Amino acid sequence: MTATIKSLGEQGLLKIFRQYCSDVVGDDAAPMGTTLPEHQMVVTTDMLVDGVHFSDHTTNPEDVGWRAAAVNLSDLAAMGAKPWGLVMSVGLPPDTEVAWIEGVYRGFSECLQTYGTELVGGDTVRSPIRTLSVTAFGQVHQSQIIQRHTAQVGDAIVMTGVHGLSKAGLELLFNANLKEKLLAPLKVRNRILAGEGLVEAICRCHQRPIPRFDAIALLHKLLKQHNHLKDFPISGMDSSDGLADAIAQICRSSKVGAKIFWRSLPIHRAVRTLAGESALDWVLYGGEDFELILCMPFKLAEPFVHQLSNAAIIGEIIEGNQIDGLEMRSAFQHFS
Amino acid sequence: MTATIKSLGEQGLLKIFRQYCSDVVGDDAAPMGTTLPEHQMVVTTDMLVDGVHFSDHTTNPEDVGWRAAAVNLSDLAAMGAKPWGLVMSVGLPPDTEVAWIEGVYRGFSECLQTYGTELVGGDTVRSPIRTLSVTAFGQVHQSQIIQRHTAQVGDAIVMTGVHGLSKAGLELLFNANLKEKLLAPLKVRNRILAGEGLVEAICRCHQRPIPRFDAIALLHKLLKQHNHLKDFPISGMDSSDGLADAIAQICRSSKVGAKIFWRSLPIHRAVRTLAGESALDWVLYGGEDFELILCMPFKLAEPFVHQLSNAAIIGEIIEGNQIDGLEMRSAFQHFS
Repeated sequence: MTATIKSLGEQGLLKIFRQYCSDVVGDDAAPMGTTLPEHQMVVTTDMLVDGVHFSDHTTNPEDVGWRAAAVNLSDLAAMGAKPWGLVMSVGLPPDTEVAWIEGVYRGFSECLQTYGTELVGGDTVRSPIRTLSVTAFGQVHQSQIIQRHTAQVGDAIVMTGVHGLSKAGLELLFNANLKEKLLAPLKVRNRILAGEGLVEAICRCHQRPIPRFDAIALLHKLLKQHNHLKDFPISGMDSSDGLADAIAQICRSSKVGAKIFWRSLPIHRAVRTLAGESALDWVLYGGEDFELILCMPFKLAEPFVHQLSNAAIIGEIIEGNQIDGLEMRSAFQHFS
Repeated sequence: MTATIKSLGEQGLLKIFRQYCSDVVGDDAAPMGTTLPEHQMVVTTDMLVDGVHFSDHTTNPEDVGWRAAAVNLSDLAAMGAKPWGLVMSVGLPPDTEVAWIEGVYRGFSECLQTYGTELVGGDTVRSPIRTLSVTAFGQVHQSQIIQRHTAQVGDAIVMTGVHGLSKAGLELLFNANLKEKLLAPLKVRNRILAGEGLVEAICRCHQRPIPRFDAIALLHKLLKQHNHLKDFPISGMDSSDGLADAIAQICRSSKVGAKIFWRSLPIHRAVRTLAGESALDWVLYGGEDFELILCMPFKLAEPFVHQLSNAAIIGEIIEGNQIDGLEMRSAFQHFS
């Protein structure tokens, strides 16, 4: 018989939770210490619901946990902040398998360890639908906060990695036939094994997003070398709602327009193969790639994209309120 | 036709949310500034699910919102912390009435204003079941943190207010006949109107719990007057899971026992009338009164209960691991 939350009981569930939680005292609230000198606290929160944000069909429990952590950590990275701690509340139907929630905590914890932070508290309640709610705290030096309303005319628009691969991964997970489409052109060249590895790698792009703390660290390193740059000339956000949405939101908040370098906009080979004529759509509107879209002076952007794999300068901030060549479609309904 | 979330759309819902949220910039994470000098950050989180933690039958939307804020603020008060800010994520079925979520935000905001804090961020997602997830963070001077593992033999056990009234309120809301039971003895004395007011007041005890920041403020005032008391001789927690549970948890964490002053344990007249022979059960195990159970030296406890309405010294911390006369029942299954 499979063990369920009901058979485990509240106390048993709490015991599992505590294995992954740093707050061993169990007070009403978890003590976190003080902010670092000259640092600000930043906070972000996301709710993930079974059937809406994840499903057994596409995501195993470890990946659900990783994703719940990563989407919040990505918001911290997008502010230029280092993680300070996270809390996770979980709503579970009594017939949930114990192995499922253990897997979620394991994947969550694995992501936190990878980025040097920890789970400090949470809540476990009964719910008809599996629900995770995560709040993440970070700290950022008060002079180095990245926000979306400070883009300057003349800034380069930089993206930190490939867009459209999360969408590609999701499509591959939902549609087994697509896999053949991806492998077919490779078979010709006798690289089937590499192709299989590619399918898995693309699925991972959807299942295990990577918060781009590495990009922020590189930025700080470059800024030290370019200390003639006054203040902190960087704005931006993450691309969780899509590349096009991020550009539009930065422009709208900063009251500027953008020129996109369409000819040099990178489109990954796998996205071209899977999406065909829709390849550009996947790149612009696919969403959930959790890359960073940053605006900064060209003299900083150039060494940045040179030193960060897959990063690219994809446009320039201009005067006005138009984003040259970008169709105002679905993702933009927010702002109509 | 009643307006629903579906007809309103995501953008409309966000517009409502923003009316109640202080973060007008809308970045990936909300900047919060730094901790106060010599203060620690503390964090707590709770998830509330429709049909489990609230229902349309017993709680209007404003009260759901108030409660979601108050249960978290009560955890901060129990640590001796002042509120710093809250985030709230909301999961909603598309057919949810707009008026419902507006009411929730209104009640939430009302509670936050009452205790001098604000909503700084959140998330709104689709879910098959109405779900609220709140995270509250507060600040407490590092020498004044109230925890549950530091109770000392010889301490007085103090409760800050009446227990059993939240349970009484819930019973009244579920069972209209009970109302007559409460009014009947009053009719004899021609005090029916006062009785009606009493019914409402008791229901409010369930619907609108009060985080006891006032009790913490009084403690600090008294400590200044008793500056011969070394360090910060106070331990405790809130009574969200019941009076008996709080005493048991403090004893267990502090590795001490307790003697309860059964003869002077206050039982409210309304609890006696409604619960009959179960009155003591309601007081001990009813739960959700969100009072504070504090342990402190008698010389501090005496002026404290004298100056705080309805507060009482209900026992004393003793050596050992027994809680004299307290039955280990349902609420204690956690610890068996």
